[in-house]
Amino acid sequence: MISKGYKAADPVTKLVEELHKLPGIGPKSAQRLAYYLIRVPDEQSMQLSEAIAAVKQRIILCSFCANITESDPCDICGDMTRDQTRICVVEEPLDVPTLERTGAFNGLYHVLHGVIAPMKGIGPDDLQIGGLLERLKGGAIEEVVLATNPNVEGEATSMFIHNLISPLGIRVTRPARGLPVGGDIEFADEVTLGRALEGRQEF
Amino acid sequence: MISKGYKAADPVTKLVEELHKLPGIGPKSAQRLAYYLIRVPDEQSMQLSEAIAAVKQRIILCSFCANITESDPCDICGDMTRDQTRICVVEEPLDVPTLERTGAFNGLYHVLHGVIAPMKGIGPDDLQIGGLLERLKGGAIEEVVLATNPNVEGEATSMFIHNLISPLGIRVTRPARGLPVGGDIEFADEVTLGRALEGRQEF
Repeated sequence: MISKGYKAADPVTKLVEELHKLPGIGPKSAQRLAYYLIRVPDEQSMQLSEAIAAVKQRIILCSFCANITESDPCDICGDMTRDQTRICVVEEPLDVPTLERTGAFNGLYHVLHGVIAPMKGIGPDDLQIGGLLERLKGGAIEEVVLATNPNVEGEATSMFIHNLISPLGIRVTRPARGLPVGGDIEFADEVTLGRALEGRQEF
Repeated sequence: MISKGYKAADPVTKLVEELHKLPGIGPKSAQRLAYYLIRVPDEQSMQLSEAIAAVKQRIILCSFCANITESDPCDICGDMTRDQTRICVVEEPLDVPTLERTGAFNGLYHVLHGVIAPMKGIGPDDLQIGGLLERLKGGAIEEVVLATNPNVEGEATSMFIHNLISPLGIRVTRPARGLPVGGDIEFADEVTLGRALEGRQEF
């Protein structure tokens, strides 16, 4: 006589399912978040709901750098105090504020929105590479920094773009590979340590 | 000339802030989730947004057991095939489906919505204890299972409720403390092992 059929109320089940679709949120976390959202004041959960909706309604891609923005051109492309001769190519919009925080680059950006990943069916045409080439044709760009992630897919994507750009006679660079600051040589992996030695700098 | 003032677009910042308020979501995870939501098809993010809104609009507390539900009484309180003489008291709505999955209890539930925690300013009056006592006054209940969490606050809350119920002559029980199934005696903590020995059962 045990009613195995008991389920949480429908809107709860639906919310758990939707939260579970987010990256890094497993079924247990999704459940915990759902019950948390039920418990908080209406105001807080409505703010989250509206923020999710608003981000899709108000965000567009900058027609120059393909970064996400509310206005076109974006704040960076529209800022004439920045160095208009350098473009830093990154994989994701998230990489732009990360690089900006370093204060070490004052040029423009170009966001690819992914990497070439044949296994996932993502080819060069799925990325914002065409727009990058258009920008380079203008002739004003002197340097392209390829700041994709230092992993297999990122390196392959940078190599692909490098091959496209090199005939244009533009300088192509990438961030140095080496020991992370604050790291420990003992725990550095062989590849990183090898790259750090190859690229060793004057003391 | 480095523009330190660069920030992500406003709706993005807002979304990151709102996601960061969720339990277990740090600033980095919040950022990653926000950019994920920007990337997914509109449909998926709208479904999440609507699910969060719907859960607050459609969920009420069952006037009997205080569990969250779409209809009052809830599915469990309204199910006359269940044992109407036993009530299992739990801390959170989430505990109900967890206990239901065991198939080991076929009675009714009562959800406290928290535990007594003087340090957080949560007293007995902030919990659904009054409603529980009302249900017991009817005289139909023969057993109350106190299934709060086996930690200090849960135990203290159970002790408090036990003291209120015992004058009513109703049997008060709690789930056995002992070794977790699949566990290893070598790794059991002393308290659990002590409880397991005290409550040892016939082979």
